[in-house]
Amino acid sequence: MNQTTVGVIGAGRIGRMHTENLVHHIREAVVRAVASPHLDHSWAEGLGIAIRSTDNSAVLEDSEIEAVVITASSGKHSELIQQAAAMGKHIFCEKPVGFDEGPIEEAIAAATAAGVQLQVGFNRRFDPEVCRLAEAVRGGEVGELHGLRVINRDPAAPPIDFVKRSGGMFFDFAIHDFDTVRFLSGSEIEEVFAAGAVLIDPEIGNAGDIDTAITTLRLANGALCVIDNSRQARYGYDQRFEAFGSKGNFVADNLRATTVESFLEGGVFTDLPPVNFVERYREAFIAELRAFVACVQAGVPVSVTADDALAAVRVAAAAKRSMIENRPVEVAAAGAAVRSDR
Amino acid sequence: MNQTTVGVIGAGRIGRMHTENLVHHIREAVVRAVASPHLDHSWAEGLGIAIRSTDNSAVLEDSEIEAVVITASSGKHSELIQQAAAMGKHIFCEKPVGFDEGPIEEAIAAATAAGVQLQVGFNRRFDPEVCRLAEAVRGGEVGELHGLRVINRDPAAPPIDFVKRSGGMFFDFAIHDFDTVRFLSGSEIEEVFAAGAVLIDPEIGNAGDIDTAITTLRLANGALCVIDNSRQARYGYDQRFEAFGSKGNFVADNLRATTVESFLEGGVFTDLPPVNFVERYREAFIAELRAFVACVQAGVPVSVTADDALAAVRVAAAAKRSMIENRPVEVAAAGAAVRSDR
Amino acid sequence: MNQTTVGVIGAGRIGRMHTENLVHHIREAVVRAVASPHLDHSWAEGLGIAIRSTDNSAVLEDSEIEAVVITASSGKHSELIQQAAAMGKHIFCEKPVGFDEGPIEEAIAAATAAGVQLQVGFNRRFDPEVCRLAEAVRGGEVGELHGLRVINRDPAAPPIDFVKRSGGMFFDFAIHDFDTVRFLSGSEIEEVFAAGAVLIDPEIGNAGDIDTAITTLRLANGALCVIDNSRQARYGYDQRFEAFGSKGNFVADNLRATTVESFLEGGVFTDLPPVNFVERYREAFIAELRAFVACVQAGVPVSVTADDALAAVRVAAAAKRSMIENRPVEVAAAGAAVRSDR
Amino acid sequence: MNQTTVGVIGAGRIGRMHTENLVHHIREAVVRAVASPHLDHSWAEGLGIAIRSTDNSAVLEDSEIEAVVITASSGKHSELIQQAAAMGKHIFCEKPVGFDEGPIEEAIAAATAAGVQLQVGFNRRFDPEVCRLAEAVRGGEVGELHGLRVINRDPAAPPIDFVKRSGGMFFDFAIHDFDTVRFLSGSEIEEVFAAGAVLIDPEIGNAGDIDTAITTLRLANGALCVIDNSRQARYGYDQRFEAFGSKGNFVADNLRATTVESFLEGGVFTDLPPVNFVERYREAFIAELRAFVACVQAGVPVSVTADDALAAVRVAAAAKRSMIENRPVEVAAAGAAVRSDR
Repeated sequence: MNQTTVGVIGAGRIGRMHTENLVHHIREAVVRAVASPHLDHSWAEGLGIAIRSTDNSAVLEDSEIEAVVITASSGKHSELIQQAAAMGKHIFCEKPVGFDEGPIEEAIAAATAAGVQLQVGFNRRFDPEVCRLAEAVRGGEVGELHGLRVINRDPAAPPIDFVKRSGGMFFDFAIHDFDTVRFLSGSEIEEVFAAGAVLIDPEIGNAGDIDTAITTLRLANGALCVIDNSRQARYGYDQRFEAFGSKGNFVADNLRATTVESFLEGGVFTDLPPVNFVERYREAFIAELRAFVACVQAGVPVSVTADDALAAVRVAAAAKRSMIENRPVEVAAAGAAVRSDR
Repeated sequence: MNQTTVGVIGAGRIGRMHTENLVHHIREAVVRAVASPHLDHSWAEGLGIAIRSTDNSAVLEDSEIEAVVITASSGKHSELIQQAAAMGKHIFCEKPVGFDEGPIEEAIAAATAAGVQLQVGFNRRFDPEVCRLAEAVRGGEVGELHGLRVINRDPAAPPIDFVKRSGGMFFDFAIHDFDTVRFLSGSEIEEVFAAGAVLIDPEIGNAGDIDTAITTLRLANGALCVIDNSRQARYGYDQRFEAFGSKGNFVADNLRATTVESFLEGGVFTDLPPVNFVERYREAFIAELRAFVACVQAGVPVSVTADDALAAVRVAAAAKRSMIENRPVEVAAAGAAVRSDR
Repeated sequence: MNQTTVGVIGAGRIGRMHTENLVHHIREAVVRAVASPHLDHSWAEGLGIAIRSTDNSAVLEDSEIEAVVITASSGKHSELIQQAAAMGKHIFCEKPVGFDEGPIEEAIAAATAAGVQLQVGFNRRFDPEVCRLAEAVRGGEVGELHGLRVINRDPAAPPIDFVKRSGGMFFDFAIHDFDTVRFLSGSEIEEVFAAGAVLIDPEIGNAGDIDTAITTLRLANGALCVIDNSRQARYGYDQRFEAFGSKGNFVADNLRATTVESFLEGGVFTDLPPVNFVERYREAFIAELRAFVACVQAGVPVSVTADDALAAVRVAAAAKRSMIENRPVEVAAAGAAVRSDR
Repeated sequence: MNQTTVGVIGAGRIGRMHTENLVHHIREAVVRAVASPHLDHSWAEGLGIAIRSTDNSAVLEDSEIEAVVITASSGKHSELIQQAAAMGKHIFCEKPVGFDEGPIEEAIAAATAAGVQLQVGFNRRFDPEVCRLAEAVRGGEVGELHGLRVINRDPAAPPIDFVKRSGGMFFDFAIHDFDTVRFLSGSEIEEVFAAGAVLIDPEIGNAGDIDTAITTLRLANGALCVIDNSRQARYGYDQRFEAFGSKGNFVADNLRATTVESFLEGGVFTDLPPVNFVERYREAFIAELRAFVACVQAGVPVSVTADDALAAVRVAAAAKRSMIENRPVEVAAAGAAVRSDR
């Protein structure tokens, strides 16, 4: 079996998840090194990772490492991509690549110049539910696409500290929905109207963000889509998708741990949706890394790139401006000058 | 609109339900008289029923009455049928027509001799769920029938007094299931094995009855069916049906008051099944009387007759004997001599 | 039983449905007269209606008639209400009472001056699914309300002739959704953003209307709601509702004729949603008239009035303007001067 | 990480599946050797297995191998267990350990004498659906257990050659259901009544077997259970379980690949159940081996043993006798003399 030698930069919650997935589930990869400012050495040692460092250069400068997984703090993604590209390493980078167009374009340029792969962590593209809908749209089962519906609700609002540096709901959270709409429709988003509100926690408003949003998207193919976001769904991580068209409607519901229904005197109960994204997208997180490694090994282009990140960020910027100015905003008009002003 | 003049004999719980259905939902019928030993006169007056009596002859001897609905106490059904037939009245009789073959055969003979219709209250034959399965079996969607599954559970055990005079679980309760199997399959039941137990209330056992049963039926067409009975399902009146065959499986689930699912921190809840047979088979109870009146008016034979009651009672007798003797019993062998010994 | 004498004005599709419901299902009412320009006399005679006329005065001037049901062509609703009120008759009027505020306000004034009841045909308020959600919102099960989602899709686009005189999607179709949002939330709609498109049939666009819309509503209580409309859902009449709040999410799904699931080699099938509003809201259409008659008899105010029609029309006007001008529009700002310009 | 060195004996369909699960999913194990009469060497080499042989002694006599997985042809299981035990190796053996009590008792004696672990492949005990029901029964959610329902249907009948040497439906197929009933109830099966039929393929009957069965079980705790078996469900591998008791009913439904419902003009479709046991119990097959390895490493007893295999075989023998003699058969009465006479 051909094995790709991988290094991981960043070992926070998501970084550790990716690392464990590589070690436990992806035989085609070997994790040789992990670097993170507050690295838990015993965790890394337990996984059998040879090189464990607080210094990113331990990964970037190791000549055996062919590919890096970047999950460092968001603000450093573009810089790290450029450094890794310069060292000739293929790159898997968690979203966001950046909150502004500039850093993303620099990352793209660096990867292109170096001739390395650059895959972005839009994990939903590897989810069986989402993929089934994409297949229905692209295969013609839906007919001509009239609309998409995405419900994306977090189980609990993030800490205020995170909110402040997150880029805000559109850049941090709905960015997945913008990408999902592009992926499912195969069409670009042309215009956005976003209505936002602070209904859950006034502190989120004080931090300059919102916690609830309804976003309407007009696509290049004419379809009208809607995204429903909330930072707090008491019942779990609510992830639902619908594709509606001239032939019918395809509906993907929340997953549940088991199918068991309990019929009791007080009511009929079923399992709650998954508690968070780690549980909900467990398979997708593994599949995206497996696909990345397979593309690296085969030398074929990855399917989700920093161009997709750039497109999604442009929509996020338009959504934010729409929300602030309370008017529909064209995505193209967001242009190069957009700043997320976080 | 042609209206059939109807008289009701027996105004207990089921009798009142049928009467109200006739008055409120079946324009093709006029309820002229009701007779019952403990008649609630104000209830009958409120429904606009002209003749209200504690004497059955007020119904039987009224020359304007064309059809009678018999819901008196079970032991009198056959006798009342014979009296009504003698007066030339068409008859709708609640199940059971009788617990033994003799009284049922006498009822059939009387109706035949008088040339009147005699419909029996196997209400499930008019239930949309059951009818959909029947259609699937008869229309070939199921393919060759391999088996039927019936789950029939009451929400709460009846009072011990009722248990004692009910004829027992097979004659009083599972009788509907035996008829449902005949109706769905279009085939006769040839052999029965019934396993019974007293798991809910020892008093039921002391009364000579059981409260839990699994009954296996072998049909003339070869199919193997199973009936699952309980006298106490805390969550409501559990009514489920499946038809399995060479082409697939058709599954009818419990009804619910609404489709609403509530996603809350403590779980996902849906509505309980209906609380009892009145709620569950509301439509079917109306439909069976509407069909009866329509057949009377059109002069075409009713679809469910005392012959069906006779066939079901023969199965009940075999089931009871099987349970007592702990061996499979042929239905034919139950013969003319069967006695339910209640 | 106290019976209210009713006259019906208008015997088109909906008028006939209401009339049949009164005759077959509402014992507390007697339909004495029906008037309609193209009346089907044999249909009316078959229902046992004594007075059958092509002249509305046969209803309006009959002194025995206590209440009228108005289902004439939409443009005449307000005038008929005023005439009926002048004759002292209680009024049930199909929606719309009018497309503009003026006629509705005149109708309200006339009913108020005459001291008669005026109920409007927002049938969904009597639907068990919608009522369960309303109960969850008002009873606190949902917690603080954060949003409502309404999906309302017709199975097939109406004829172009109807489209032209219908008032357009917002006045004719989404008007039910605006009322549903007001009913479920118990709050007023303050601002509307409507995105519309012609995706189904260019002729609808040529007629000056749209066939697809996503409408975002901001309520006085802060909640953000979204309505999803289409004129053509190949699979039936899609009616879904969700209420989301600080404690959870309540989801009402489409109804189905039976629960039966068929497991076949080619897939698992369930019944389609109801084919149209008559089938879907059968119970609600009966319940709204029963409630009307009960209020008339008891002398208590009806629960859904022309004030509700007025409020909904103001939202429709704002939605239409929002769609045309591609900007959010305040409902209050729509003011007295609003005209639907159909 | 502590790694257990494993050898695999038998590389048919199930053997290859277990081997691949060990290699790909169970980091705590290393597969050192595989032996099988018709071994696919390139398959084994591709998995990185060092020793590849057609001779079982390559596994049994390798001193580094601590544990063996036996998936050879059923008739050799007991002998191989005895040989492996004699070499001091822990053992995971696919079901059946044997079709008669003798070989199973010899296997148990050998493992006991050698002080090695002996786990049997009743994979359902590691299935999340089944485990949730077991938890509900044992944790008291179900209340006092009144009954269990198991539906176990294969998608397609096995080849006649397999049928002839399989031991028949009860020993080969329903054996899993007998174990499931014991596992879910925590009670022993005391009496069995099995009704069998040949409805799918007369060749199965000619081979002395049946293809359809309804089996009623009376448990030591009084509960009445029913198992529904078929060799051919056109729609997939039908695996459903219910636990019913004094507090309610817990229902585990079939799994589906996705939740997606497609609403089309011709109907509403959902995914079919899994196509076979490999797909349906993918997780459980991994979990049972992971649990085996964990028990070996920790030195704690495995949770499912050859005693469970023995108990299940006694029930199978009683079921077969019951079916042949058409009478209920006590499991205890099956005794030591039982022979499956295959």
